Amino acid sequence: MVTVDDPDDPRLSDYTGLTDVELRRRREPAEGLFIAEGEKVIRRARQAGYEMRSMLLSAKWLDVMRDVIDEVPAPVYAVSPELAERVTGYHVHRGALASMQRKPLPDAAELLAAARRVAIMEAVNDHTNIGAIFRSAAALGMDAVLLSPDCADPLYRRSVKVSMGAVFAVPYARLPDWPRGLETVRDAGFQLLALTPDEKAVPLDTVPTGGERRTALMLGAEGDGLTARALRAADEWVRIPMAHGVDSLNVGAAAAVAFYAVTR
Amino acid sequence: MVTVDDPDDPRLSDYTGLTDVELRRRREPAEGLFIAEGEKVIRRARQAGYEMRSMLLSAKWLDVMRDVIDEVPAPVYAVSPELAERVTGYHVHRGALASMQRKPLPDAAELLAAARRVAIMEAVNDHTNIGAIFRSAAALGMDAVLLSPDCADPLYRRSVKVSMGAVFAVPYARLPDWPRGLETVRDAGFQLLALTPDEKAVPLDTVPTGGERRTALMLGAEGDGLTARALRAADEWVRIPMAHGVDSLNVGAAAAVAFYAVTR
Repeated sequence: MVTVDDPDDPRLSDYTGLTDVELRRRREPAEGLFIAEGEKVIRRARQAGYEMRSMLLSAKWLDVMRDVIDEVPAPVYAVSPELAERVTGYHVHRGALASMQRKPLPDAAELLAAARRVAIMEAVNDHTNIGAIFRSAAALGMDAVLLSPDCADPLYRRSVKVSMGAVFAVPYARLPDWPRGLETVRDAGFQLLALTPDEKAVPLDTVPTGGERRTALMLGAEGDGLTARALRAADEWVRIPMAHGVDSLNVGAAAAVAFYAVTR
Repeated sequence: MVTVDDPDDPRLSDYTGLTDVELRRRREPAEGLFIAEGEKVIRRARQAGYEMRSMLLSAKWLDVMRDVIDEVPAPVYAVSPELAERVTGYHVHRGALASMQRKPLPDAAELLAAARRVAIMEAVNDHTNIGAIFRSAAALGMDAVLLSPDCADPLYRRSVKVSMGAVFAVPYARLPDWPRGLETVRDAGFQLLALTPDEKAVPLDTVPTGGERRTALMLGAEGDGLTARALRAADEWVRIPMAHGVDSLNVGAAAAVAFYAVTR
């Protein structure tokens, strides 16, 4: 454990400029790290097998995190709340940050071999939404998540936080060739269901998904939904029936309902 | 239509200090108004029969809202974006604000007489959450919403916006006597289901809710969930089965799943 009081100390570089989304989006994957924030999320990242690069703690968190400090070989930087704010750019409410080492992502084919229900997201580029969808996917028993190339990073700090660490609980992969990669999913024996409010879609609960069936549920971004080419690549369009003249659910609610429906 | 260029013009007083949540929470119910923001939401408020007190529009919204301006007798204040910001305290992205007249809330008993599935919220005091839950309740076909006294105001600007106007689509009432008011619900022939992650609860889909049954689904706030006394007042505890070691869904996702389940 090292007490640091210089905000320019190079050992703190994993934590600099955390509020600069553009900078962090480039830096984190390039440098192979991500930031876990708060006691629960840090513990969950460790349980999921991520290696810790370092921790940044304000004094009152040293006791709470004592067991983790004792177990990991990574350096722990004890800092004042003011210094934490100088370095990160914001007031760290949860008092504990950890820089974790990313793991190589599995191949989609590998995940599909072991899965029966997968969620496929297209262009969900909002960190809050992707975190919320992962939380629901994990909680409701989806086996894996596949992401189009333009989806946001599930390991970005905000995604991790909103997911309450569920991004560590459900395995995910990218489909680098989009929408062509959906063929891989179909070839693995999955029925591709596209979730859309379109009237031509059939109600979600009329499509059988039980038994030995393998179901891939495709979701688009808030507002835009799935693109035309993604819709064309699907086997079936499904919708959640709407009442009271409402035209849609928000993407988080729609995802949760759809995950629930296909895992019954 | 009146062009206003003095931020202290008393005719703009409905719109002052919109970012001061505490102030607005007191003022709006006391003065019988609420603020609708953006073209869609303003139109939905009108369709739902709310009377307009006035509109505050920046120049480029005059054309878009022309038909509304022509129809309503209420004054329309044309202002510059800078003046709108001076008055309201924020940059009004959606360019159009309307001050609408509240309507008296119906009695719970009146709503219950005409309903078969109702949502009951306890202490949901976050405006975003209450808006999101209303959107799901309306979209998924809940007939009415009942609120404990400490729930946030569904007509607060942020709730209205997050709900996309769904707070106008599904009728709601307060239960002023809490949790005693739940007796009224039971007396109206409803089965009171309390949504909780508690292990003693039965899985949601094992409780029959179809046919002529009347179902009241009780939800608590994010984090805390239902209070012990609300749980005691329920007929049955229900839970959404969790996977991957996740302990809960966020309240918006849980509500959506539960509404979907009880309206099947």
